[in-house]
Amino acid sequence: MALPEETTARLSALLGPRLSLAAVDRDHHAASESFHRAPPPDAVAWPEAPDEVAQIVRICAGAGVAVIPWGTGTSLEGHALAYRGGVTLDLSRMDRVLEVRAADMQASVQPGVTREALNTELRATGLFFPVDPGANASLGGMAATRASGTTAVRYGTMRDNVLGLQVVLADGRIIRTGTRAAKSSAGYDLTGLFVGSEGTLGIITELTLRLHGQPEEVASAVCAFDSLDHAVECVSATIQSGTPMARIEFVDALTARAFNLHSGSSLPETPHLMIEFHGSPVTVREDAARFGELAREFGARGFDWATTPEDRARLWRMRHGAYHACKALRPGASGVVTDVCVPMSHLPQAVAEAAGDIAAAGLIGPIVGHVGDGNFHALLLVDPESESEIAAAKRLATRMAERALEVGGTITGEHGIGVGKRPLMAAEHGEAWQVMGAIKTALDPGNILNPGKLVPDRN
Amino acid sequence: MALPEETTARLSALLGPRLSLAAVDRDHHAASESFHRAPPPDAVAWPEAPDEVAQIVRICAGAGVAVIPWGTGTSLEGHALAYRGGVTLDLSRMDRVLEVRAADMQASVQPGVTREALNTELRATGLFFPVDPGANASLGGMAATRASGTTAVRYGTMRDNVLGLQVVLADGRIIRTGTRAAKSSAGYDLTGLFVGSEGTLGIITELTLRLHGQPEEVASAVCAFDSLDHAVECVSATIQSGTPMARIEFVDALTARAFNLHSGSSLPETPHLMIEFHGSPVTVREDAARFGELAREFGARGFDWATTPEDRARLWRMRHGAYHACKALRPGASGVVTDVCVPMSHLPQAVAEAAGDIAAAGLIGPIVGHVGDGNFHALLLVDPESESEIAAAKRLATRMAERALEVGGTITGEHGIGVGKRPLMAAEHGEAWQVMGAIKTALDPGNILNPGKLVPDRN
Repeated sequence: MALPEETTARLSALLGPRLSLAAVDRDHHAASESFHRAPPPDAVAWPEAPDEVAQIVRICAGAGVAVIPWGTGTSLEGHALAYRGGVTLDLSRMDRVLEVRAADMQASVQPGVTREALNTELRATGLFFPVDPGANASLGGMAATRASGTTAVRYGTMRDNVLGLQVVLADGRIIRTGTRAAKSSAGYDLTGLFVGSEGTLGIITELTLRLHGQPEEVASAVCAFDSLDHAVECVSATIQSGTPMARIEFVDALTARAFNLHSGSSLPETPHLMIEFHGSPVTVREDAARFGELAREFGARGFDWATTPEDRARLWRMRHGAYHACKALRPGASGVVTDVCVPMSHLPQAVAEAAGDIAAAGLIGPIVGHVGDGNFHALLLVDPESESEIAAAKRLATRMAERALEVGGTITGEHGIGVGKRPLMAAEHGEAWQVMGAIKTALDPGNILNPGKLVPDRN
Repeated sequence: MALPEETTARLSALLGPRLSLAAVDRDHHAASESFHRAPPPDAVAWPEAPDEVAQIVRICAGAGVAVIPWGTGTSLEGHALAYRGGVTLDLSRMDRVLEVRAADMQASVQPGVTREALNTELRATGLFFPVDPGANASLGGMAATRASGTTAVRYGTMRDNVLGLQVVLADGRIIRTGTRAAKSSAGYDLTGLFVGSEGTLGIITELTLRLHGQPEEVASAVCAFDSLDHAVECVSATIQSGTPMARIEFVDALTARAFNLHSGSSLPETPHLMIEFHGSPVTVREDAARFGELAREFGARGFDWATTPEDRARLWRMRHGAYHACKALRPGASGVVTDVCVPMSHLPQAVAEAAGDIAAAGLIGPIVGHVGDGNFHALLLVDPESESEIAAAKRLATRMAERALEVGGTITGEHGIGVGKRPLMAAEHGEAWQVMGAIKTALDPGNILNPGKLVPDRN
């Protein structure tokens, strides 16, 4: 497949060297941090302004050419791959923090700004943007996939932290959704509709984000439990007591082992919780003490409080490094990362069943989780040359998703659908998946925006 | 206008005495707590189950008859009035709390359950549902209008507290949106789309709600400020300090006066803040102390802490009674309640301008606000017999909405669009309003669900 000559000519006239048909650029945008593979796009465009995005979309729409938005390429379900050819819209040059309104605790940013870049810019303001999926993803991509991560238990997901958007529609119209007010009941929540729509309804060209005050005091700790059940029961009891946690992460015995081997820690090789509190010195001390009491009731031991910023940074670097630490458990292996989310009361059973399924399949698969949300991941370590191991890992991922559905959970807590989870959408949503398709058809009748992802195929 | 005979016959066969064509029933469903007026519906139906709702919708859709959902009739923008005739679907008989899942901090309820009924049912569980718009509204109606109220600053609006829905679509299909997991990135956020859609996209027949732990300790207070500016600056400083407030309400000098006359209080007749903290005894004491320090920096005085549950109940009864207290400032008057929401930094100016506009119009209009959200209401007191006063009040409401838009705010923070704010939708949303219309057309091509509300008229 190649672009129609006239399309190429018009895009070139618009973008000059910021349109590339070179194999190196196209191949770069066919890569993915997972086993999802697709042919490269026909071209890559690097727009620098919303108007340019609109013009590109108009040119492509006129020729029936697909447009696939690209942030940093860190998604795990093949969201940004060009399965049906077309033009990949690399938004990395739209990377300006447009405005920080400190008094309103808001920032307006372009979609290519990464979360770390925004937080660097915010450092002097006393504010920060809390959503933290681990990867230094673009904020546009994080909004498009409704990302979350370790801090969602306190600060929410992208759903909760995007106040408004500027979006280029499939026909090139540019709209604004939301306002700068903290809340609104003025009609359909289009902001919420575009957040998580994975580029299938429009291209996000600007975001208005909710910021939060940098906590005056932070306390982090890691502690060991005899069993997952006790760890999860401890988290439930803490949440019900109203003690606010900024982060509450579960790592299983195998992950603790991986940390010991890779990060120089000396944790007992049992399940652990990693926790963080944000607040004033008094409230953080109180929250930490309450958690400590509850945790000891559930048999926690080996409390290690990180009291300096350096210790805390080391603790969370270790957590965010779980992927690489675990991969080192099987040298040469690649990872297949699963992602389900279940009601809290079903979490111990869901994790135990996942561990059982992994063992039965003869694979190694450490498990970590954002346990305050009921969200967990298995990192299935496979030989990248072994088709059968990859197939087994994909079967396991599907089985975990099916088990999540059986207990009222979801097939993805934070990684999104892309192509990877699309075969499970009907199972989760039933007829509501067709409603998503109807909305897609209404907003993108030509099916040019990231086709083949998320929604059902057209009849 | 009357129902086609065959439609009446089919509905009667389905519902028996739960379909009424009697004037008394129809008139009751033509009443509204505002100046919006419409002819009564052609009939009123009281379904008792989702399947019945689906059958009614199918019967009506087949005949092109409008269906208007009705909760408790407490909306302020004419949401539930039958401007184009049709059948009003009174959901008050679908009032069962279906399940409380305490371990997951969730409840499944039918749409006719009121917020007070749910909280009564939850009393023994240690949990509560926090969203509190003042009126004892139905939870279905609260979801449909994206209601919020005094506790949104801490617990969020209905958008944040509805995890999932069962919805009857315009063609009678029954879908489920969302899951029982705390978060999900599995496709378009249909839950968020139906919350706030005011019955124009589907009829809510079940809600899965997020519950919260009843706070162990509660502290409430009222304090006086010399000026609105100082009160708002105090709130901003408190939010930025990360001190969590469960409620933070502004009342102006005139409202303080109304409280003194009506509720037996003896407040200085200046602007006030009413505040509440939730947490453990230690954290509440700390939060209250911090707020006290900040407030004194901004000149607060006359701190009155409500230390007993009875004192707190009295304090919030006074706040929730503001509407009636203020109406007593002008005996015989009726109220036109405005509702805008602006970025925090613009709140002092917005309230001051509103007060100036009200004075210039020669009306009495006390102002109260959910100041932590930038949301405020003026209660414009008009002679219900005076067309010119009512017209002046409506002009004022429009002017406030326009001023809110000028500073990046919204025309409604929590009351919704209905018919009252519909003329302002294009001004707030521009082309995005047409996108709402496209979604409406996709999901309700026959325009039978609550027609004439929220979205643009069809071409």
